[in-house]
Amino acid sequence: MINVGIVGGTGYTGVELLRLLVLHPRVKIKAITSRSEAGINVADLFTNLRGHIDLKFSDPADAKLNKCDLVFFATPNGIAMQQAESLLQAGVKVIDLAADFRIKNIAEWEKWYGMQHACPTLITEAVYGLPEINRELVKNARLIANPGCYPTAVQLGFLPLIEAGIIDVNHLIADVKSGVSGAGRKAEIHTLLAEASDNFKAYGVPGHRHLPEIKQGLSNIAQKPVNLTFVPHLVPMIRGIHATLYAKLIQQVDLQALYEKRYQNEAFVDVLPAGKHPETRSVRGSNICRIAVHQPQNSDTVVVLSVTDNLVKGAAGQAIQNMNIMFDLPETLGINQVPLLP
Amino acid sequence: MINVGIVGGTGYTGVELLRLLVLHPRVKIKAITSRSEAGINVADLFTNLRGHIDLKFSDPADAKLNKCDLVFFATPNGIAMQQAESLLQAGVKVIDLAADFRIKNIAEWEKWYGMQHACPTLITEAVYGLPEINRELVKNARLIANPGCYPTAVQLGFLPLIEAGIIDVNHLIADVKSGVSGAGRKAEIHTLLAEASDNFKAYGVPGHRHLPEIKQGLSNIAQKPVNLTFVPHLVPMIRGIHATLYAKLIQQVDLQALYEKRYQNEAFVDVLPAGKHPETRSVRGSNICRIAVHQPQNSDTVVVLSVTDNLVKGAAGQAIQNMNIMFDLPETLGINQVPLLP
Amino acid sequence: MINVGIVGGTGYTGVELLRLLVLHPRVKIKAITSRSEAGINVADLFTNLRGHIDLKFSDPADAKLNKCDLVFFATPNGIAMQQAESLLQAGVKVIDLAADFRIKNIAEWEKWYGMQHACPTLITEAVYGLPEINRELVKNARLIANPGCYPTAVQLGFLPLIEAGIIDVNHLIADVKSGVSGAGRKAEIHTLLAEASDNFKAYGVPGHRHLPEIKQGLSNIAQKPVNLTFVPHLVPMIRGIHATLYAKLIQQVDLQALYEKRYQNEAFVDVLPAGKHPETRSVRGSNICRIAVHQPQNSDTVVVLSVTDNLVKGAAGQAIQNMNIMFDLPETLGINQVPLLP
Amino acid sequence: MINVGIVGGTGYTGVELLRLLVLHPRVKIKAITSRSEAGINVADLFTNLRGHIDLKFSDPADAKLNKCDLVFFATPNGIAMQQAESLLQAGVKVIDLAADFRIKNIAEWEKWYGMQHACPTLITEAVYGLPEINRELVKNARLIANPGCYPTAVQLGFLPLIEAGIIDVNHLIADVKSGVSGAGRKAEIHTLLAEASDNFKAYGVPGHRHLPEIKQGLSNIAQKPVNLTFVPHLVPMIRGIHATLYAKLIQQVDLQALYEKRYQNEAFVDVLPAGKHPETRSVRGSNICRIAVHQPQNSDTVVVLSVTDNLVKGAAGQAIQNMNIMFDLPETLGINQVPLLP
Repeated sequence: MINVGIVGGTGYTGVELLRLLVLHPRVKIKAITSRSEAGINVADLFTNLRGHIDLKFSDPADAKLNKCDLVFFATPNGIAMQQAESLLQAGVKVIDLAADFRIKNIAEWEKWYGMQHACPTLITEAVYGLPEINRELVKNARLIANPGCYPTAVQLGFLPLIEAGIIDVNHLIADVKSGVSGAGRKAEIHTLLAEASDNFKAYGVPGHRHLPEIKQGLSNIAQKPVNLTFVPHLVPMIRGIHATLYAKLIQQVDLQALYEKRYQNEAFVDVLPAGKHPETRSVRGSNICRIAVHQPQNSDTVVVLSVTDNLVKGAAGQAIQNMNIMFDLPETLGINQVPLLP
Repeated sequence: MINVGIVGGTGYTGVELLRLLVLHPRVKIKAITSRSEAGINVADLFTNLRGHIDLKFSDPADAKLNKCDLVFFATPNGIAMQQAESLLQAGVKVIDLAADFRIKNIAEWEKWYGMQHACPTLITEAVYGLPEINRELVKNARLIANPGCYPTAVQLGFLPLIEAGIIDVNHLIADVKSGVSGAGRKAEIHTLLAEASDNFKAYGVPGHRHLPEIKQGLSNIAQKPVNLTFVPHLVPMIRGIHATLYAKLIQQVDLQALYEKRYQNEAFVDVLPAGKHPETRSVRGSNICRIAVHQPQNSDTVVVLSVTDNLVKGAAGQAIQNMNIMFDLPETLGINQVPLLP
Repeated sequence: MINVGIVGGTGYTGVELLRLLVLHPRVKIKAITSRSEAGINVADLFTNLRGHIDLKFSDPADAKLNKCDLVFFATPNGIAMQQAESLLQAGVKVIDLAADFRIKNIAEWEKWYGMQHACPTLITEAVYGLPEINRELVKNARLIANPGCYPTAVQLGFLPLIEAGIIDVNHLIADVKSGVSGAGRKAEIHTLLAEASDNFKAYGVPGHRHLPEIKQGLSNIAQKPVNLTFVPHLVPMIRGIHATLYAKLIQQVDLQALYEKRYQNEAFVDVLPAGKHPETRSVRGSNICRIAVHQPQNSDTVVVLSVTDNLVKGAAGQAIQNMNIMFDLPETLGINQVPLLP
Repeated sequence: MINVGIVGGTGYTGVELLRLLVLHPRVKIKAITSRSEAGINVADLFTNLRGHIDLKFSDPADAKLNKCDLVFFATPNGIAMQQAESLLQAGVKVIDLAADFRIKNIAEWEKWYGMQHACPTLITEAVYGLPEINRELVKNARLIANPGCYPTAVQLGFLPLIEAGIIDVNHLIADVKSGVSGAGRKAEIHTLLAEASDNFKAYGVPGHRHLPEIKQGLSNIAQKPVNLTFVPHLVPMIRGIHATLYAKLIQQVDLQALYEKRYQNEAFVDVLPAGKHPETRSVRGSNICRIAVHQPQNSDTVVVLSVTDNLVKGAAGQAIQNMNIMFDLPETLGINQVPLLP
């Protein structure tokens, strides 16, 4: 059994890790920390877990995380970078679901995240945990930077096109829509049901933290800088990301065949038949990314539709996928749920 | 392995059976019938099942259901009563998720369901599949009448009070609220998102088909006729039933202890601590019924709150629970999912 | 023109007052106060008002409210009771949309609202502004206690039955459901879309602040103490209240005729034809209360369904209705909107 | 008073016309036709209209529409083209809210709408009723082709850029999102709440009927053919359209000033301050189109955000705006509602 600790178990990525890990056949959850909820039964806060977990939130100071095999950080940005080093030194592997180790360019990270990086030495070592690109690196990693929710859906959508070198990477457009759980379990007015329900809006058009992460990832694939316009939107639903991606084709190939071939061995990427449109509920609660590729009206603009559950493939599920790879388990173990539809 | 057939796989109870059965370790799905969709891949209609099932809908005539060990009817009312007898004669067990065998009084059934009963001889034999009441009968049953969604939530809520004989059963009130999936996967105007969203209404106050089923069940428990006012409401959500039950206490007992004791050995009934309120999402996608009992302001009115997922404990999950019991499997096998929250 | 001031314009009752008042032909809005938003354009906070209002939030100290003819308090509980007296002394009429003057029994008020009452001398004078009961008192009032949202729907629903003396007032049940805007424009976790959407729950079963207000109102009608079990629920919708009311008939009358007669001269109470069920969207954005009365299965339990928009008839609209009465204007002036459906 | 008839009053554009017209000070509704609902009280079908209208649906044969001053067609496509000619001959003006007269190229229309055009002779005369472009033509028109919901939001968004000649019109992208009421009041499975709620998807990527309408409109503005990729999406909300538009700048100007200047005299187009994001609820129930223009990260890609209520500015409201212009009334008369927020 893998002894697992979770730092910051009171947000949505925390409860989602718990939902998946309590039934994972090779995991034992040793500790879940929360400063604010220390001493409270986890199942009192998250009643869906009643009967599945018998554990209290522990104070971070008491959690003995360095006895674990693996620690997940389901914390706000800026926490993992303070604690990862001592855990690694104690031989504990670390998966950070926040953004602390995602951006290789420290100045860029500090600009977008508005704080000084506390642990620049580990940034180089950290592996960006998108298994469909970095599976071999993940296998031997001690420290995983788990990708953001938008970046997962966007990168998996663009990947085959950029690898094939058939689009103009100077004018990529990612029009992306997210359910409200992407904003986290935080008391804020703009995500109240009375504000966000029966409503739709874009936000962060001038700039969003996931932009540099996506650009870094796509540039790595392209092996040259890419330019991307990234517009996120808020959808009145709980879970789900829908990325609608646009690029100009500079070479015509069989797009359907390209996508099917690229992802034929990927358990968690599902390429839909030609002409179909994925919907977010078709992946609700699951680790699947479903993708469709279109070339409407035979123009030179390719349109890719890519959907994920932001809390699973966009966060907790992908983290467990990385864990499975790191600990040499079957990659789908414990994260093979059927999406909940309707 | 249990060889299973499903008649009528294109509604919500059908797809929910599939969601649960494709990962059930002791079940092999042999056939799913649909007249309208025969020849279509199941996973083309229900994209959440892509990668989990490789089966086409078959025409009922070709499905060889009599080779199955068990057939589920996920059909509209009036179908199972025409086919159950020949299946039973072929040694196939039958679980009907519709209402054909729920009401023992044939005249009553025919009044509420507006048709002549095609198979009155089997009504007596049919076991009403509410395991928390009829577990022993289910074990040896050939034919199960799987309870309705409202009746499950209401009966489990009232059960301890009536068994204890401490309420006036002549003036029971069940104010019950259901998500829209309870209306089925049918093209109708009043359940369109543009009609039912951001809206709330009662319906069927003069009379609803689940009323005689609930009264029959409660009367059996009470061993005398009960009187019930039953008011269903439509909630703008997909899944979930919330029953708010009212009764006049005729004897004061420790209500919390009563409920905890009655359900202490039930895997799928969870009595919340005193003072709590269950919410439907805390059982979303799971076979759990969560219950809280209150006596507000120390008046003589007891208030019981009972929530289920109408498609699971209210339909497909309870059907599989019955199957597990009938085939002597652990009762929770394959239906132990953690509710999806948020 | 009536010169109007609004204290506390940043909550939902505040913006709803503005939505209605900016087009009211006899009102001029002189000031809207907000400590936190002073100096901000009202239309920058509430973009629906762009083009309809050219006013900034003013600091309460600068608002010159005592030059107004009328001041609305759209504040949290406990504010109006501190300021009403000096306004009244300056000849300004006051309508409090909060609860400060609703309960005549000071000890009871202090128990439920958890604070000492700052102005007990005005409680007797304050008129409870439910025009369908107190129209004559409202006409000459200086100070109106505008009813709560639940109490409006419940009292209008029970009123004809209690006035007629045909129900047992010792066992009234009000099972009431509210949209999330009833919780106010406050940053809280449990009303986030990701928490409250696709979900349904009861709350406050042990006791809710609107209980004493409803009991006081119903007891006044009955001219004797009534007993009420009151269970509020949270519906995943923005606006709307649906009260489902239960009572035991002690005398049989023509219920439909009773309701139609009682409300035949009320512009804002609409009795539906027999057998119908009102839905909350049928009053969305309007000051209407729609009511249906049922006697299911000819039992001795009467069921009343009563719907309102909690922000209009349950708050701002009713306040303006009271204003119209106080200033001798046509009662429907400025609040005759057609409900927004769909 | 303008005597008005409505053909096809049972859909969402029909009930929305009624909501606005019953309070329009210069309109008298003479007839509303519906084959299926003839003889039924309008307010029985649309309960929001109770107390506001006392009229029954009439059979089209009995409606005496040729006595009206103006007839609105709120019908499916293909009806107005059969009846417009005889009405015009009788001196009745016609506004078609469907698509019969929108596309000037008959072959193109027949390809997209899958039927033969019944009245090609009127296509040339019909004025495309987007007042912000064609106000002068509308004034004297007998026959108005009222624009589609998507085309209104997209054209108003792109208009200033194309008029100014500063974008590459060969690679326009319109990523557009609509509430479910855009699909009409039709019994269909995919728009059921249980299907469309808590879900997001694109549809019609290979081709959508509004594409040729938008291209025709933008090409007219550009005075040369434009190329557009148009991807519509379904949002789990009732009303609202959000168009996110992308174009490549070929010349740098002050975009904010450009938009403010172009729309300074338009009562129904509101340009937001720089840096803002419009939300659909800010126009709910109103005839406003709110627009923001962005140039993220100073790249050469301009992003325009344009929101409308699809049933008002995208249908019934714009139709009444056209009526006001045709009958020389103030353009905002009767359609000056404050959006309903929250």
